[in-house]
Amino acid sequence: MLSFESDYTIGAHENILNRMQEMNLIQQKGYGGDVICESAKEKIRKACECPQAQIHFLTGGTQANATVIASVLERYEGVVAAHTGHVSTHEAGAIEYTGHKVLEIPGHDGKIKSSELKAYLETYWQDGNHEHMVFPGMVYISHPTEYGTLYSREELEEISGICREYDIPLYLDGARLGYGLMSRDTDVTLPVIARCCDMFYIGGTKVGALFGEAVVFTRGNMPKHFLTMVKQQGGLLAKGWLLGIQFDVLFTDGLYFQISKNAIEMAERLKEGLEERGYRFCLKSPTNQQFIILENKEMENLREKVAFSFWEKYDESHTVVRFATSWATGSEDIDSLLELL
Amino acid sequence: MLSFESDYTIGAHENILNRMQEMNLIQQKGYGGDVICESAKEKIRKACECPQAQIHFLTGGTQANATVIASVLERYEGVVAAHTGHVSTHEAGAIEYTGHKVLEIPGHDGKIKSSELKAYLETYWQDGNHEHMVFPGMVYISHPTEYGTLYSREELEEISGICREYDIPLYLDGARLGYGLMSRDTDVTLPVIARCCDMFYIGGTKVGALFGEAVVFTRGNMPKHFLTMVKQQGGLLAKGWLLGIQFDVLFTDGLYFQISKNAIEMAERLKEGLEERGYRFCLKSPTNQQFIILENKEMENLREKVAFSFWEKYDESHTVVRFATSWATGSEDIDSLLELL
Amino acid sequence: MLSFESDYTIGAHENILNRMQEMNLIQQKGYGGDVICESAKEKIRKACECPQAQIHFLTGGTQANATVIASVLERYEGVVAAHTGHVSTHEAGAIEYTGHKVLEIPGHDGKIKSSELKAYLETYWQDGNHEHMVFPGMVYISHPTEYGTLYSREELEEISGICREYDIPLYLDGARLGYGLMSRDTDVTLPVIARCCDMFYIGGTKVGALFGEAVVFTRGNMPKHFLTMVKQQGGLLAKGWLLGIQFDVLFTDGLYFQISKNAIEMAERLKEGLEERGYRFCLKSPTNQQFIILENKEMENLREKVAFSFWEKYDESHTVVRFATSWATGSEDIDSLLELL
Amino acid sequence: MLSFESDYTIGAHENILNRMQEMNLIQQKGYGGDVICESAKEKIRKACECPQAQIHFLTGGTQANATVIASVLERYEGVVAAHTGHVSTHEAGAIEYTGHKVLEIPGHDGKIKSSELKAYLETYWQDGNHEHMVFPGMVYISHPTEYGTLYSREELEEISGICREYDIPLYLDGARLGYGLMSRDTDVTLPVIARCCDMFYIGGTKVGALFGEAVVFTRGNMPKHFLTMVKQQGGLLAKGWLLGIQFDVLFTDGLYFQISKNAIEMAERLKEGLEERGYRFCLKSPTNQQFIILENKEMENLREKVAFSFWEKYDESHTVVRFATSWATGSEDIDSLLELL
Repeated sequence: MLSFESDYTIGAHENILNRMQEMNLIQQKGYGGDVICESAKEKIRKACECPQAQIHFLTGGTQANATVIASVLERYEGVVAAHTGHVSTHEAGAIEYTGHKVLEIPGHDGKIKSSELKAYLETYWQDGNHEHMVFPGMVYISHPTEYGTLYSREELEEISGICREYDIPLYLDGARLGYGLMSRDTDVTLPVIARCCDMFYIGGTKVGALFGEAVVFTRGNMPKHFLTMVKQQGGLLAKGWLLGIQFDVLFTDGLYFQISKNAIEMAERLKEGLEERGYRFCLKSPTNQQFIILENKEMENLREKVAFSFWEKYDESHTVVRFATSWATGSEDIDSLLELL
Repeated sequence: MLSFESDYTIGAHENILNRMQEMNLIQQKGYGGDVICESAKEKIRKACECPQAQIHFLTGGTQANATVIASVLERYEGVVAAHTGHVSTHEAGAIEYTGHKVLEIPGHDGKIKSSELKAYLETYWQDGNHEHMVFPGMVYISHPTEYGTLYSREELEEISGICREYDIPLYLDGARLGYGLMSRDTDVTLPVIARCCDMFYIGGTKVGALFGEAVVFTRGNMPKHFLTMVKQQGGLLAKGWLLGIQFDVLFTDGLYFQISKNAIEMAERLKEGLEERGYRFCLKSPTNQQFIILENKEMENLREKVAFSFWEKYDESHTVVRFATSWATGSEDIDSLLELL
Repeated sequence: MLSFESDYTIGAHENILNRMQEMNLIQQKGYGGDVICESAKEKIRKACECPQAQIHFLTGGTQANATVIASVLERYEGVVAAHTGHVSTHEAGAIEYTGHKVLEIPGHDGKIKSSELKAYLETYWQDGNHEHMVFPGMVYISHPTEYGTLYSREELEEISGICREYDIPLYLDGARLGYGLMSRDTDVTLPVIARCCDMFYIGGTKVGALFGEAVVFTRGNMPKHFLTMVKQQGGLLAKGWLLGIQFDVLFTDGLYFQISKNAIEMAERLKEGLEERGYRFCLKSPTNQQFIILENKEMENLREKVAFSFWEKYDESHTVVRFATSWATGSEDIDSLLELL
Repeated sequence: MLSFESDYTIGAHENILNRMQEMNLIQQKGYGGDVICESAKEKIRKACECPQAQIHFLTGGTQANATVIASVLERYEGVVAAHTGHVSTHEAGAIEYTGHKVLEIPGHDGKIKSSELKAYLETYWQDGNHEHMVFPGMVYISHPTEYGTLYSREELEEISGICREYDIPLYLDGARLGYGLMSRDTDVTLPVIARCCDMFYIGGTKVGALFGEAVVFTRGNMPKHFLTMVKQQGGLLAKGWLLGIQFDVLFTDGLYFQISKNAIEMAERLKEGLEERGYRFCLKSPTNQQFIILENKEMENLREKVAFSFWEKYDESHTVVRFATSWATGSEDIDSLLELL
C-alpha cells in the first residue's frame, strides 16, 4: 500500500545503516563522549557556520523540547509559543510535567507574528502585577511549523530582534528542518538560523535517520551540567555514538540537504498533480506536508489504497487530510498516488 | 486615605478575633483534627444542604487551587479553564508547578460558555491523536469571576451537565463566593453550587476572615490521603483550629451572608453614584468589584486621595480601574469617594 | 487534662492577639509589602546583628523548608540532611515533590557530624561518575534537632566551614529556635547562627505565635524573584501583615527570648523531677523536648490523665515517649505532672 | 586496546543489524503500534510463561525506571530501594524529578533483605504519624544488582510475599537480566520473575541490543494511559518498531539466553584466571561483573593496556576496580587480559 502518512514511517538512509554495520563491534566511550559524536558535532558546526556551537544529541523531538526548555528556563519562567505549537498541544503535557507553563499566543498557519509577540511581552512587563504571573523566559517557534509553513529570513530576524530586546532566548524546533531549508520558497539557511536563534534542533528522525535530534546551543549558552539534566529526564543514551553516527553520515557531503531536497521535489510534483486535478488546498505549504480538503466519501475510498493522515474536520461533508512526502519518497509513489485521484 | 483597592486589605470580623481570644489558651489537636474544625464543617454542610460533604480548610486561594487540582487530577490530565481564569494567569504557574497543564478556552467577561466547553471536549475526544495530548480531567470556573461576573443557575447547570456527560469533575473557585451569593442579580445559592459542582471552595480571606478557604468535596470524592498531599504541598497548618474558628464564626447565624450583603449594598450605592456622575463602566458587574474607565489625568489626581487598582489600559488616554467594596466598607466610605469624583 | 503533647497545641502570646485587635481594621498593603512586616524585619536584622539580612515570612515549617530548598537549589542539586531530619522523614515528601532529592547522611541524636559531611562531599566529588548523581547543593540542619539536641558553636562553625570550602549554602531549620537559644547548655546565639548559615528560619508557630516562620537570608542571597516562587508554591499570604505583626511583637523587648526561656525552665524542672523519681531518659536533651522510657502499662495508665507523644518502640515492654514544654507551660503544670508519676 | 569497561561499549548482535537492514524501507505504524513489536511481545510473553503480560519497549534503563515508577506510584507514595540501588544513587535524581522519594533501606552487596523490608513496612504502618510521611508504594530491586549479585528464588519469593502482604507492587530492574538468568549459581528463571514481580524490565542495551528495555507488567496492571505518560516523560520513540526488531530477534531461538551465557562463561574463565594468579576479590559475583582489589600502582600500569572501571577506593594504597564481560566478549580477550596480569 502507498503511504503518505508521515515522514517517520520507515527507517534510515542506507549510508547510516552501512556505517552502523562497520562500527558495530568497535569499542566506544559511553554517553556521547566518543569520537564519532565529536566528528558529527564538528560537521554540524561547519554547516551552521557557528564554530562555538555546543551540541548534544537526543533521541526524539518531544524529548528534545522538554529537555531544552526545562534546562534553560528558571523555575518561575514559561515558554511563549503559538497555540498550535507542538509543545502547546501534542506532547502530552511534557513541558508542564517539568513544571513550566506554555504561554500561548496566537498561531497563524502555525507561525507567530513578531508584532503579537512584542505586544505580549510589552503588556506583561507593564502589568504591575506581573510578579504573580509566569515570566516569559523563552520563545519557541517551529520551522517548518506543524502546518508545513516557513518563516522568511526577515520574519526570523524580527522575532530574534524582539527576543534580544527583551533578553529572552529564542528556540527553534527543527523536527523537519531539512525540508524547510530545501524548500523552493525560502531564504532561510542553517547559518541564518544559527545567527537568529539561541538554540535549535536539527531533526533526524523525520529526515533520514532512524532516530535522533541534534540540539545546538549557538552562543556558549548550553546550561551548566546539561548532561546531568538530560540523564535526570531519562534522555541520556548509553550508546550515544549511535546518534553520532547518524548525524555524522547525514552531514557528510551534504547528504542531509540532498535527501531533504528529494522530499521537496516530490511534494512539488504532488502539488502540481493535485492542482491539475482541481483539488482544494487547505493551506499553501512550501514544504513536504500538503493539506487537502477531501469530500468524506472520496476520502474513505482513497483510504483503502493509500495511507494518509486525518488532519481536521472541514465541514459536515469534508475533511482536511495530510499527505507527507519524505527523503525516501520515489517519483513512482507520487505517480501511483496521482493515478488514484 | 480611602481604600477601594481590594477586599483583602484589612483584618477580620470582630467576632472572629473575639473567638480567637477566648480559645487562645485551650489545648487543641493539631492539623485540623480538632473539635472546632468539626463544628465548622458541620455548619458548612448544613448551609450547603450537603450532609455528605467532606471539607478541608486551607489558608489561601492559590494554595486551595493548586492543592485541589493537583490532588484530583491524574498525571496525564489538565484542568480546563477560561483563558482569564485565576489559575491561568495570576498564580505564578502554581498549577504547572505541580505538573499539570491549564487547558485554556475562551473567557467571556471571565465566564466560560457551555457550548464552547462542549465543543472543546468533543473535538478532543474525536481527535485520533488525543493520546498525545493532555486529557481534560477537570473543569475550573470562578464565581464570581475575576471580572466580578456571575453564572446564572441555568448556566451552572448546563456546565455541570456537560461535565457529567464527559465524566469530568467541575471545580468552582469561590474566593469571593459570599459576594456572588448575595448579589441582587443571582439565582445561585450555596446548595445549588453544592449540587452542580464536584468540589468548590468558600472564600474566607476576602470575606470576613483573616485568612482561610473552606474546600468542599460534595460527593464523597475527597481524594484518598488528601491530608498527606496538603502536607506535601506545604499547606497543612499546625494550628488548624485557627481556620476552624474562622469558619465556625462565619457560619454562625448567617454571618458570612450578612457581611457579604453589606459589600453588595455598598457596591450598588457606588454604582448608582457613578452612573449619576456619568462615569463609563467597562463591565456591568453584579458583585463587589466595579470596573470604571477613567481619563488618565483624572486617574492620577484621584490616586492621591483614594487607593484603587489598575486593571488594564483602555486606550492611549484612558485606563480601566477597579473599585472593590468589602464586608467592612461603610456607607461613609462610599459617600466620601463619591464626593471626590 | 494536662498536655505535654507538643509545643503547637495552643494559640499565641497575648501581646500578639492584642496587637491584632488594634491593627485589625487598618488598611494594609497585600502580600507582605506593608510597614509592619518592614518593622518586624528590621527588629530581626538587629537581633541577628545582620543588617544586610533579607527576610520573608511564611506560615509553617514544611512550607518554609520546601520553599527555601526548591528556590535555592539548581535542578540537578539535592539537599544533604541527617537521615532523621524533618525534611527527610516527616514532610510527606514535600522536598521530592519539588523535584529535589534529600541526600541522607547519618544522624546522631538528630545531628550531623562535620567529619561525615566532609567525607560525603569528598567522596562525591572524587567519584568519576558524579555527573550521573545528584549534586549536593545545600546542607540542611535543624537546631534544636528533632531530638531536642543542639549543636555547639564549634560544631556549627565546623559545618559552616566545610560548606564554604565546598561552596554549598548551609540552611538551618529553626522551628524551635528560641528553645535552642535559651538552653542552659548552649553557646550559640542568633548572631552566631546568622554568621554561620546562609539561610535559616526563626520558628514562630512553636514559640509564641499563632503561626509563622521568619526565613532569613544572611548574605544578600535571597533568590531572584523569591516572592514569585513563594506564590508558585502556594505560600504567599494575602494578608502578609498578620505574619509581620507576630514577629514584630515577638522581637519587641526580647519577648521571643523571654518566653522561650520559660519553656527551658519548665523542662529543667521536669527533668529534675523525673530524675528524682528514677525515670530513664532515652536522650539527654537540653531543650524543651524530653524523651523518657516508660513501661507500656504505666504509659497506658498515664495517658488517661496526660497528653504526650508516642516517640518509638523501645523494646517489647517499653516505649519511648516525649514530653514537650512550651512558652506557655506553667510551673503548676509541671507539678501536676510530677504528682502523677 | 582491550576493553572490560562495561557491557554497553559496543553495538548489537549481528542478527539485529541484519534484520534492521531487511526491514529498513518497509512502512510501519508509529509509536510501537506495529506488527514487529506485537511479535516481539508475544515471544516475550511465551518466554515468561505469562500470557497476560502487557509490554512496552523503552530506550534505556533510567528512562524505564523513571517511567515505570512515576506512572505506577500515587503522588503521596515513594519507592523502597536498597541505598545502593541504581535509582537511589546513579540516575541523577530522575525519580525525584518526577516528584517521588526513593525510600532507602540497607543494601547488602546490592541486595535488600526481606526481614529488613518487612521491619521497614511494619514500622511505617505502626507510626501514628505516618500520614506525615511518604507512603511506601512500590519495592524496587535490581537483579543482577549493581554489584553483580543475585537473589535466590527463595529470597525473591519471600520479598514478593511481603509485598503482597502489604499490597505493594514489586518492581525488578533487569538491566543485566540475561546475565543473571544464565549464571551458574541461580535457580531464578524468567517465569519465576514474572510470577514474583508485578513489573520488571528485560534489559537489551547491555545484552545484545543497540538500545532498548522491555518493560513487562505481569498482572494486567499496566497503568491506564501508559503510552501518554511515556510521551509526557519524553520516552515515546517515533519508530518504535526499532525496539520491536531488537527484542524480536533476541527472543528468537533463545538468542538472548545464548549470548548471555557467553558473558557468564567468559566471566568464569576470568575468575579462575584471577584466582590462580592470587588476586583478591572484593565481592563474589556470580554474573558478568567482577570486582577486584588492585594495588594502586599496578592499577595505573594496567590502565595503559586495558580499559576497566574504577569502582571505589579500598584503602590508601588499594582500589576496587570492575571488569565486565559481555555477550560479545571472546575467549581470546580473556586470555589477553590474563597475560597482562
